Amino acid sequence: MNKFITFEGIDACGKTTQINLLSDFLKLKKNKNLIVREPGGTQISEKIRNILLDNNNNISDETETLLFLSARSQLINEIIIKNINKNNFTLCDRYIDSTIAYQGYGRGLSLDKIQTLNSFATGDIKPDLTFILDIEVSESIIRLGGEKDRMEESGMEFLEKVRYGYQNLAKTSEDRFRFIKCMNRDIKDINDEIIHNVKDFYKGALDE
Amino acid sequence: MNKFITFEGIDACGKTTQINLLSDFLKLKKNKNLIVREPGGTQISEKIRNILLDNNNNISDETETLLFLSARSQLINEIIIKNINKNNFTLCDRYIDSTIAYQGYGRGLSLDKIQTLNSFATGDIKPDLTFILDIEVSESIIRLGGEKDRMEESGMEFLEKVRYGYQNLAKTSEDRFRFIKCMNRDIKDINDEIIHNVKDFYKGALDE
Repeated sequence: MNKFITFEGIDACGKTTQINLLSDFLKLKKNKNLIVREPGGTQISEKIRNILLDNNNNISDETETLLFLSARSQLINEIIIKNINKNNFTLCDRYIDSTIAYQGYGRGLSLDKIQTLNSFATGDIKPDLTFILDIEVSESIIRLGGEKDRMEESGMEFLEKVRYGYQNLAKTSEDRFRFIKCMNRDIKDINDEIIHNVKDFYKGALDE
Repeated sequence: MNKFITFEGIDACGKTTQINLLSDFLKLKKNKNLIVREPGGTQISEKIRNILLDNNNNISDETETLLFLSARSQLINEIIIKNINKNNFTLCDRYIDSTIAYQGYGRGLSLDKIQTLNSFATGDIKPDLTFILDIEVSESIIRLGGEKDRMEESGMEFLEKVRYGYQNLAKTSEDRFRFIKCMNRDIKDINDEIIHNVKDFYKGALDE
């Protein structure tokens, strides 16, 4: 058990909000936890993030994939492994499944190759639990509003493919996935469902 | 035939000099050619280059590998493929074999995985000819002098492994390799050997 939890979903699905609420819950119960985000979280990864999200950059699909993986590799080696070794919780905003959903399902790159790349970048370190926060694409577009970065600008059809990718991931045999339906629900209600799952999964390992 | 030629070897082995001389020869004979370097050659790849060579950056071996591959992927997609399609020569300073020699043999990462990554980043586009310019590590260190970037700072033992990697590559079954012994030889003499090989390989495809 790595106490490593990731949050996934299409843009503006509420990941950041829910991570912060889960972190608050864990802190209340004196469970040390660290929030990190992808791409980013280290000096190098933030530099890579700037390249990836800059609207002026015309990046090939393969380059985009490799840059996300570069940022991930640095984050896992520099931050996450150390935090896991301290036995603290790590809450990560996007991780390996984002590459499968966005570059695999979204851009149409080979899922097998992406698995190999993910494995190389992370040394096969997987989260214990992954929450997929599902909203409709039309809702994502409304929430994003006018100011979009390069990834968010990819459009509706692209996001439909990404959402479909996440839905498919949730159906795979890996039992780490928790698919959370987030349409027309209060933030608090979604937070309760997440906390319920975390309590259930970590039973003995959680200070309550 | 892609008219795609790469130059490899440990730091300061004379790649840049020899590429420029070959380019001059080709131009004299009215063979259009483009010189590119790795990591770099595109706006994105130069940004990645800055991260990779910055002495202040503490980069994991996997991240380093993925960043070199990101830069390569952008270079091949944005520049090299288009140049190949115009039927012009491409002369590239470092390419897939650098990752095998530096991150594989040098850093000790899996050669199999690096092959897979190279294939993903380049869409399996290989050069027709690869010149490996071999010098002794002590000579490389002298030529580099005091001002070194992050990669060049890796030290003598590292460069010995890289040189050994190139020597091994040259012995593989791929017939694109030309191993050029460069110790104690004039620049002009080495250039003659390279031109001889290019003439021989491209016979009908070369304007002479």
